[in-house]
Amino acid sequence: MLRFFAVRGLSFIVLTAFGVTVANATDLLPSWNDVASKRQIVAFVEKVTDPRGSDYVQPAERIAVFDNDGALWGEQPIYVQLVFALDRVRALAPEHPEWRSQSPFKEVLAGDIAGVMAGGEQALLELVMASHAGMTTDEFAAIAGDWIATAKHPDTGRRYVDMVYQPMLEILGYLRANGFKTFIVSGGGIEFIRPWAEEVYGMPPEQVVGSSIVTEFEMRDGVPTLVRKAEMNFIDDKAGKPVGINSHIGRRPIAAFGNSDGDLQMLQWTTAGSGARLGVIVRHTDAKREWAYDRESAVGRLDKALDIAGEQGWTVVDMAKDWSAIYPPVAD
Amino acid sequence: MLRFFAVRGLSFIVLTAFGVTVANATDLLPSWNDVASKRQIVAFVEKVTDPRGSDYVQPAERIAVFDNDGALWGEQPIYVQLVFALDRVRALAPEHPEWRSQSPFKEVLAGDIAGVMAGGEQALLELVMASHAGMTTDEFAAIAGDWIATAKHPDTGRRYVDMVYQPMLEILGYLRANGFKTFIVSGGGIEFIRPWAEEVYGMPPEQVVGSSIVTEFEMRDGVPTLVRKAEMNFIDDKAGKPVGINSHIGRRPIAAFGNSDGDLQMLQWTTAGSGARLGVIVRHTDAKREWAYDRESAVGRLDKALDIAGEQGWTVVDMAKDWSAIYPPVAD
Repeated sequence: MLRFFAVRGLSFIVLTAFGVTVANATDLLPSWNDVASKRQIVAFVEKVTDPRGSDYVQPAERIAVFDNDGALWGEQPIYVQLVFALDRVRALAPEHPEWRSQSPFKEVLAGDIAGVMAGGEQALLELVMASHAGMTTDEFAAIAGDWIATAKHPDTGRRYVDMVYQPMLEILGYLRANGFKTFIVSGGGIEFIRPWAEEVYGMPPEQVVGSSIVTEFEMRDGVPTLVRKAEMNFIDDKAGKPVGINSHIGRRPIAAFGNSDGDLQMLQWTTAGSGARLGVIVRHTDAKREWAYDRESAVGRLDKALDIAGEQGWTVVDMAKDWSAIYPPVAD
Repeated sequence: MLRFFAVRGLSFIVLTAFGVTVANATDLLPSWNDVASKRQIVAFVEKVTDPRGSDYVQPAERIAVFDNDGALWGEQPIYVQLVFALDRVRALAPEHPEWRSQSPFKEVLAGDIAGVMAGGEQALLELVMASHAGMTTDEFAAIAGDWIATAKHPDTGRRYVDMVYQPMLEILGYLRANGFKTFIVSGGGIEFIRPWAEEVYGMPPEQVVGSSIVTEFEMRDGVPTLVRKAEMNFIDDKAGKPVGINSHIGRRPIAAFGNSDGDLQMLQWTTAGSGARLGVIVRHTDAKREWAYDRESAVGRLDKALDIAGEQGWTVVDMAKDWSAIYPPVAD
């Protein structure tokens, strides 16, 4: 997948350097069936890139934002970052004998995920801090990068980075070929995503927005160091997403792709701007090839955003019907 | 200046699209005399862009960060953003009769800047909040953009945006021509700088890092809105600069340009990385064409960073000797 992506990227750069619009959706979106959602996305892109049209948007303003969990890769049965946190707690357990008798750590070590979940947000926060804080930013990037390089989903046997959605990779490439700058805007940790987002999504670290913990600069034995503290700094979810967009991007996107109520305000903020706007909800309808869930799901619940999608003119993607492939081909 | 800059930008894009290194420092740095500081900067750029050399750096990692006040434009006798705050307080005064008897507002309205300064940080914070908060992000961007379009420095008669340093504009262009991505990392307000940074510096909003106040998402009469609150969120100065860099850029720069002790930690963080690194201090030595100040200045104090510049191998630019021009030519 990565090689395929890289070669493509190169040809895009050459073509777009001279302002040639590469809007050949047939070539660039092969995993999309000829359905309404695809046609709406393509119509939007053709509209904002047509310099003779009234909806034309200058390249600098062609900002597209993407949720990560459930929009660019899978999120069931639990967020990948939570799997990482649980694995880290297990790996660190020998250094923490006290965890054997402390919730939520003892539940993690006993493999009692339901017991962990029963602890609610406080339990999850404790696990995140125990696994994500207390080291330098460089150390954490290495830990997260090493983990993601090999960690596999228990059901599919695929690496998590091979559970990205092929049709969404194609959308990223299609938008970039049309002069868009793409950003991830995730409720997940910004420093958990950055170590691999460039290789997997073609998304450089400065185009990743996410939740963060407090980070402080310290001189340690004369060496300038950034240390991760066990304290939340910013939660880039729900009403936090437009705030994160404003902080990191500084202009309002013209296109937003999400899949859950956590993306509701990002979709509202994006599509309320003047001129042509695109809001897209990826709906998980494919129990056979992926997972089917919406209003009742604890992870990636899609309820209110789905209710108002129609009146807002947002595009709803039906994964089962609209996508001919879910995941990229994997070289074995 | 702006047209000059735009035409230049275009030629750079075409040349760099095919990976041609445009390292012709003679052409691109005409306002630099043939001095040690220029030679050090050029040697660094040639080193990291030479694919056959051991110091070669991939384009994606060619991140350069620039302080704004005193490094890209003037900062004397008081920061431009403080001039803006004072002007805003005067403009808003008719709506606030109570200010006539309240410090620091009454001092502002009486033109008693020394009296304002006597109030210290707390006074400045009150002025910033009164002038920068309590409106939407869109409203503030319009206010700041309108102000900067016409506001002039009382001594030079130039607009502040025409008091940017021509040799530094050339450095920005030279680095971009060599595949660098440039960022502003300012102690000033991120939303004060963004409305004009693209036109003046060629710096898009997503490449501006700065201090910020708390911003919240609200639905106002069904309209998604971002509201600026009277509370500091992040101070991007001193030890905050590496934190801001980490948050917004997510990788360590290989080059940093500053001018004061507020840039010390940014210079340390940048130049402590492995491989070739460039740290540059712009030293204000030109009392005739600009201002001369360093260790004793309340604004832009340069003391500790100057002490350790030598041992750190940082380049010190002597504005009076090294620059043949200070400001860009202005069309009258």
